[in-house]
Amino acid sequence: MRKKKNIGLPPGSIIYTGKLTGDPVQVNYIEYNLETFREDDNTDGKGVILHASNPTITQWYDVRGLHEENLIQSISERFQMHPIAIEDAVDVFQRPTFTEYTNGLFFSLKVLRFDAEKSEVKKESLAIYFGDGFVLSFQELVDDTFSEVRKRITFDRGRIRGKRADYLAYALIDYTVDQYYHVIDQLESKVEDLEETISLDPDLVNKNEIYNLKKQILKIRKSVSPIREAINLFSRSESKLIDKSTINYIRDVYDHTIHIVDNIDSLRDILSGLYDLYLSELSMKMNRTMQFLTIITSIFVPISFLAGLYGMNFEYIPELGYKYGYFILLTAMVLIAIVMLFIFKKKNWL
Amino acid sequence: MRKKKNIGLPPGSIIYTGKLTGDPVQVNYIEYNLETFREDDNTDGKGVILHASNPTITQWYDVRGLHEENLIQSISERFQMHPIAIEDAVDVFQRPTFTEYTNGLFFSLKVLRFDAEKSEVKKESLAIYFGDGFVLSFQELVDDTFSEVRKRITFDRGRIRGKRADYLAYALIDYTVDQYYHVIDQLESKVEDLEETISLDPDLVNKNEIYNLKKQILKIRKSVSPIREAINLFSRSESKLIDKSTINYIRDVYDHTIHIVDNIDSLRDILSGLYDLYLSELSMKMNRTMQFLTIITSIFVPISFLAGLYGMNFEYIPELGYKYGYFILLTAMVLIAIVMLFIFKKKNWL
Amino acid sequence: MRKKKNIGLPPGSIIYTGKLTGDPVQVNYIEYNLETFREDDNTDGKGVILHASNPTITQWYDVRGLHEENLIQSISERFQMHPIAIEDAVDVFQRPTFTEYTNGLFFSLKVLRFDAEKSEVKKESLAIYFGDGFVLSFQELVDDTFSEVRKRITFDRGRIRGKRADYLAYALIDYTVDQYYHVIDQLESKVEDLEETISLDPDLVNKNEIYNLKKQILKIRKSVSPIREAINLFSRSESKLIDKSTINYIRDVYDHTIHIVDNIDSLRDILSGLYDLYLSELSMKMNRTMQFLTIITSIFVPISFLAGLYGMNFEYIPELGYKYGYFILLTAMVLIAIVMLFIFKKKNWL
Amino acid sequence: MRKKKNIGLPPGSIIYTGKLTGDPVQVNYIEYNLETFREDDNTDGKGVILHASNPTITQWYDVRGLHEENLIQSISERFQMHPIAIEDAVDVFQRPTFTEYTNGLFFSLKVLRFDAEKSEVKKESLAIYFGDGFVLSFQELVDDTFSEVRKRITFDRGRIRGKRADYLAYALIDYTVDQYYHVIDQLESKVEDLEETISLDPDLVNKNEIYNLKKQILKIRKSVSPIREAINLFSRSESKLIDKSTINYIRDVYDHTIHIVDNIDSLRDILSGLYDLYLSELSMKMNRTMQFLTIITSIFVPISFLAGLYGMNFEYIPELGYKYGYFILLTAMVLIAIVMLFIFKKKNWL
Amino acid sequence: MRKKKNIGLPPGSIIYTGKLTGDPVQVNYIEYNLETFREDDNTDGKGVILHASNPTITQWYDVRGLHEENLIQSISERFQMHPIAIEDAVDVFQRPTFTEYTNGLFFSLKVLRFDAEKSEVKKESLAIYFGDGFVLSFQELVDDTFSEVRKRITFDRGRIRGKRADYLAYALIDYTVDQYYHVIDQLESKVEDLEETISLDPDLVNKNEIYNLKKQILKIRKSVSPIREAINLFSRSESKLIDKSTINYIRDVYDHTIHIVDNIDSLRDILSGLYDLYLSELSMKMNRTMQFLTIITSIFVPISFLAGLYGMNFEYIPELGYKYGYFILLTAMVLIAIVMLFIFKKKNWL
Repeated sequence: MRKKKNIGLPPGSIIYTGKLTGDPVQVNYIEYNLETFREDDNTDGKGVILHASNPTITQWYDVRGLHEENLIQSISERFQMHPIAIEDAVDVFQRPTFTEYTNGLFFSLKVLRFDAEKSEVKKESLAIYFGDGFVLSFQELVDDTFSEVRKRITFDRGRIRGKRADYLAYALIDYTVDQYYHVIDQLESKVEDLEETISLDPDLVNKNEIYNLKKQILKIRKSVSPIREAINLFSRSESKLIDKSTINYIRDVYDHTIHIVDNIDSLRDILSGLYDLYLSELSMKMNRTMQFLTIITSIFVPISFLAGLYGMNFEYIPELGYKYGYFILLTAMVLIAIVMLFIFKKKNWL
Repeated sequence: MRKKKNIGLPPGSIIYTGKLTGDPVQVNYIEYNLETFREDDNTDGKGVILHASNPTITQWYDVRGLHEENLIQSISERFQMHPIAIEDAVDVFQRPTFTEYTNGLFFSLKVLRFDAEKSEVKKESLAIYFGDGFVLSFQELVDDTFSEVRKRITFDRGRIRGKRADYLAYALIDYTVDQYYHVIDQLESKVEDLEETISLDPDLVNKNEIYNLKKQILKIRKSVSPIREAINLFSRSESKLIDKSTINYIRDVYDHTIHIVDNIDSLRDILSGLYDLYLSELSMKMNRTMQFLTIITSIFVPISFLAGLYGMNFEYIPELGYKYGYFILLTAMVLIAIVMLFIFKKKNWL
Repeated sequence: MRKKKNIGLPPGSIIYTGKLTGDPVQVNYIEYNLETFREDDNTDGKGVILHASNPTITQWYDVRGLHEENLIQSISERFQMHPIAIEDAVDVFQRPTFTEYTNGLFFSLKVLRFDAEKSEVKKESLAIYFGDGFVLSFQELVDDTFSEVRKRITFDRGRIRGKRADYLAYALIDYTVDQYYHVIDQLESKVEDLEETISLDPDLVNKNEIYNLKKQILKIRKSVSPIREAINLFSRSESKLIDKSTINYIRDVYDHTIHIVDNIDSLRDILSGLYDLYLSELSMKMNRTMQFLTIITSIFVPISFLAGLYGMNFEYIPELGYKYGYFILLTAMVLIAIVMLFIFKKKNWL
Repeated sequence: MRKKKNIGLPPGSIIYTGKLTGDPVQVNYIEYNLETFREDDNTDGKGVILHASNPTITQWYDVRGLHEENLIQSISERFQMHPIAIEDAVDVFQRPTFTEYTNGLFFSLKVLRFDAEKSEVKKESLAIYFGDGFVLSFQELVDDTFSEVRKRITFDRGRIRGKRADYLAYALIDYTVDQYYHVIDQLESKVEDLEETISLDPDLVNKNEIYNLKKQILKIRKSVSPIREAINLFSRSESKLIDKSTINYIRDVYDHTIHIVDNIDSLRDILSGLYDLYLSELSMKMNRTMQFLTIITSIFVPISFLAGLYGMNFEYIPELGYKYGYFILLTAMVLIAIVMLFIFKKKNWL
Repeated sequence: MRKKKNIGLPPGSIIYTGKLTGDPVQVNYIEYNLETFREDDNTDGKGVILHASNPTITQWYDVRGLHEENLIQSISERFQMHPIAIEDAVDVFQRPTFTEYTNGLFFSLKVLRFDAEKSEVKKESLAIYFGDGFVLSFQELVDDTFSEVRKRITFDRGRIRGKRADYLAYALIDYTVDQYYHVIDQLESKVEDLEETISLDPDLVNKNEIYNLKKQILKIRKSVSPIREAINLFSRSESKLIDKSTINYIRDVYDHTIHIVDNIDSLRDILSGLYDLYLSELSMKMNRTMQFLTIITSIFVPISFLAGLYGMNFEYIPELGYKYGYFILLTAMVLIAIVMLFIFKKKNWL
């Protein structure tokens, strides 16, 4: 299930390594500049022409679903993508990375979503390749992740229509990184719920849930941490394909990724502290139970001994002949029990 | 409650991400040089003119409360703040950072206060933007954090009136960082209290308090640690807006932040050692209790057996006929108990 | 068994440090360019001539088995390998490393295989030395690790026939690194099995298995982590022997090694979390058992006391004379037991 | 008590932040070169003249006690100390640091002493400011820390009289760092004592002592670790005030600080291992006790049952009528006890 | 015993800081080039002449024992050793380091030996100072550590006779570092023994041995880790005293030190995992014992109660009059015990 299908193949092989969902591949095409805008919701990528004629126009191919290798090959080759970039784009196990090729820049990262029901973080692979006047985005799943960004272009919100391909690439990355806050927020509230449950009654906590939360946090960290480095590389790139005014924006995303990693780490520390608290609460509770049970025994042991004493069959035990012997003994037993209870109470053992 | 309201919006959107307290926004305006001083306690920011005529004059807008986006936009635009700087200034979740823009330098950090009652560290977001002849400070809350700095200007204490905008920005950061010492002092005394309580009686310790202290320390670290990097960037900046004589001052603040992080880390280590001590104290105490209870049982078990022995109904048990049998047995039982107590005492089990 | 046989010898000594398996050394020879291809499956390395005449031809000697020192010396000396490179090539304890010599580049790494039966990772040492027009590969074992790569050359798959020696070296390293994914996949599924077993019944877990998995993960990390650095050095090398177009490929392998180390680290973290979970599950289970047993005792202690009480031989115990005394007491005992069970149930102790 | 008294004040304020001990401030003045030597044991700092006339003469003001701000101001201002340097010199909470100012170099560090009685490390703040022909040293306490160095000058031991101010500054730092070895030695012997006590009897160990040792080690590390960085900066300084021949000496001190930090870290690891050993020894011992006590009970439980059996009042229990029934039973009981003891012994439970 | 005797003395003092063993100092002198060879087994260092006349000749003074300060002074001064280098050479607590002086290069490291009987790593201090045509080696003990290297020179094995002083220095360091493998091998087999013992019976493990192994590993790491840095400095040195061809050899030693540190770290991790395994094995075993003992009690508690029940003296207990009452009860008791044993067995508690 985690098999990397392209192990051992010649490098540059276009092999989709993800699961097949049965959904058909969706390709959305947009071209725009400040004046013009054209959209083709489901293209087969055949009609791609490089608009060398008008340098202000940006073309965006948003490929959703990576299992049609022919389609991907035809699109990527028209934009002269490097074979390794193509291979990495369709490899869903690709680590987040930024690479500069001669004709374009390649950025791969992960889209994260939180499935609240299963308490599970869902990962989707995303690759962005952009160059002079074009952006190609490759998403693992057919869900329309970037509808918000597309709306900004369609309705000319923000600065995006006046900028070039590098800004669009930035906008896609920024949007993806922003989603991480949602995921972390939801994990944080899960952790807060846990905190409350533990302080109420540690027995109500499902231990597997803590373990699962730990795993989810590890999973996010593994996805976000390399993105931080990749965006750092991006922000320091001296490629001509990146406008200087875009650098400030990228640095802002970089700050966000650091912030997110900080949050994840502190969440992990809090969770780990919480786990310790939970374990000690649980063991405290169990120990108190054992102590209580042992105290019951301890109180009956001496008075049972007394009962045994006067159950002996010696011919001459003077107390047995006393008229109120039994009642005196009963009173003594009750006193002994009360005194012991009192002592235990005072020692704070009950 | 932790929602980042501007997720997914076009970058540069002015969206206040904090809570609405209902307090009206306060804007305090000061302009000064060595000779002149003018203050306007509550301005609407309309009358802002850049004093290009007199380069020695510094203008300081202190905006307290960030929810009036129009006001913030009007002030920030007159000083040609970069859209990202504006967005970051009103984003209370902004990570401490230092960024150089063409017309000014942006510094964001956190004001920390310790709420002794709730044992909770309160965070307030603070952004400082300064350029040639002006400083803009954006505080999340309306509390007058910088009254002390304002007094220094008003009554011409220290060097501040003779310096430029970069020195004022430094003074604000320095003042904020100095406050961290207060917070750490109070946390330290909390930890010392804890230490004392544990050595007296671990049962008196509230475990949630230790956990809460851990969380507070994590919280401060998360706020202070990035400030260290930001100030480092500040001190190494080669911007023309920073006077060379100011660099030494900034480096001093940098040393303070390192010192503070050192203190936090060592506080964390002490707290963690204290927690281990507490847990082992507690478990020791509980174990001693169980041991004590088990010893009671162990002493009565043999003598109860003896009582049971002579409670048997065999027809011929010679001891039962002895005249002083009962008393001899009683004496033997007392001796057995004493010997056992003596052995346990000697083995240090009591 | 772990002895390093060449300790204390003069540097540059050709001493095979591995185990002797008895298998004869295998040497496979291939020469190729886009047009020509020649293979010699078992050569003694005698007929080696440097094809200075045709610079596009690449010669590849694949030496499998390192215990025939004469053979290795004769091959390596014809290609003017540096004495240290030869020594390192036959030293199976050599740490993964990349070194530039005047006439060639040396790369040493480990081939990893997972022996699923013994749950053990098997390490094989591999050294690659390449220069202008030739590649020498030295494998510890006679298994034909690189048959896949050889097929790519034979049947002209991918780009390999059109490239030079540096690309072949890259292809061998890439192939080896790709194998690591298999090993990690298998370890991952072992960890997942463990996870499931723990959640079912912690008693079914073999503790030595967790410890062994930990050890295997440490072992892989120790092998892979230095390869990362070595490949980084490789990718930054400015040697003339490496074509610029190959650099992108090497960087891709570099990304893979980082990815693999990330996976190993996260696997380690998951395993360590799992171990904690296992330990606490186990101790919980044992504690619940003890608690149950103690509860049995606690229920019988009071009613046994009552039985003892009416077993006393006082002359005057009024209850003994009641007609239904025995039955009343029996009923009382059952009631006491039921009430106690009920209380314990309610306290969630059963 | 830990209050930083200068929080919120304008930077450059001369505020002594330490405790007032009541001891008067001591100022020792020495001037020397290879030929001349003059000492003034208690000067008020008034007669300070810079010996610009003779560049080989070094002037050393050793100020002990920092609470007379006028005195400190008068001395420091004659040597044109930077305001921040003055502020830092009298701030006993100043972090060890090295700063270059235009007219001089500032070095601040901590003098450590070990109070064997209280098992406590005592910190004293020390600041050294030196420039062309002068050294100012500011010590928190009036104790004459540097009498050894002064003797070297007075009696012309070593190279010091032939060197300049930078060498004297080095000698003071070197002397201070050397003292750290004493402190670590004493801590090491404390740890060794602990080790011995634990292996003898863990009950004799005072747990607060381990915790206290941990705290002391943390304290030293916090003092020494930044000194390492400061000396590194010092050794890399390209200031004209440092002679090239002095650099080798400073590097030697740098090596010492690394060595000391190594020692502290390994001491910390040893102590932490010791603590684990102690805890497990203690818990082992307690468990063995509980096991022993439980075994007592386990042995008496079956034989008490037998006694109870023959204490029953059934009309027809044949054994009760046997002549030697009682003695047979007694023998059986003894045999049962012996067999159980034997089994437990064999299982290594006793 | 750990006292550093030269604390507080002027720098450059020749003070031997080790223990006095009573063995006389041994000085071995060799001079050689490809043609000539001369040895003087026990020289007093008086006749030292620098062979400026023949630059191919290398002179090697091997000083074993460091307590004769005059001898060391006379030798070191003829080769114009820097005072700090001399001080460091005789200081057995000197941290491994590499320093360049004007006339020579100084390298200090540790010789490690494993005392298998005491399971203890023995450290010996070693300093190497070499320059143009000479090598001085200073060993703490009189044992002839370098007899192997001397044989290589005497019998002209390897390349050493054809190389210069820098190669000899390299050969000494290489030889010393190679010895570390022996030490680690022996520690590894100790750890493997431990592993086996734990899996057989945790009770057979001596806990102090684990703690001691931990300490030994820490000790080695403390010695080897700084050597790594020192050799790195050595390999990057641009001193004219080091031939370019030697650099490759030094880098190989550097790789070895990294390898050794890797091995130590992984050994530490394995040991730490083993310790956890041991502790949990031990606590498991003890818990199983307690559980077993508690089960004995639990089985007798109900049947003892029954015995007590029929030991009561009520006048009317119908069962007591039954003819086979006693035998029915006995059978019931056996059944109860069997059923309980069966249940406990089924619950896997036995």
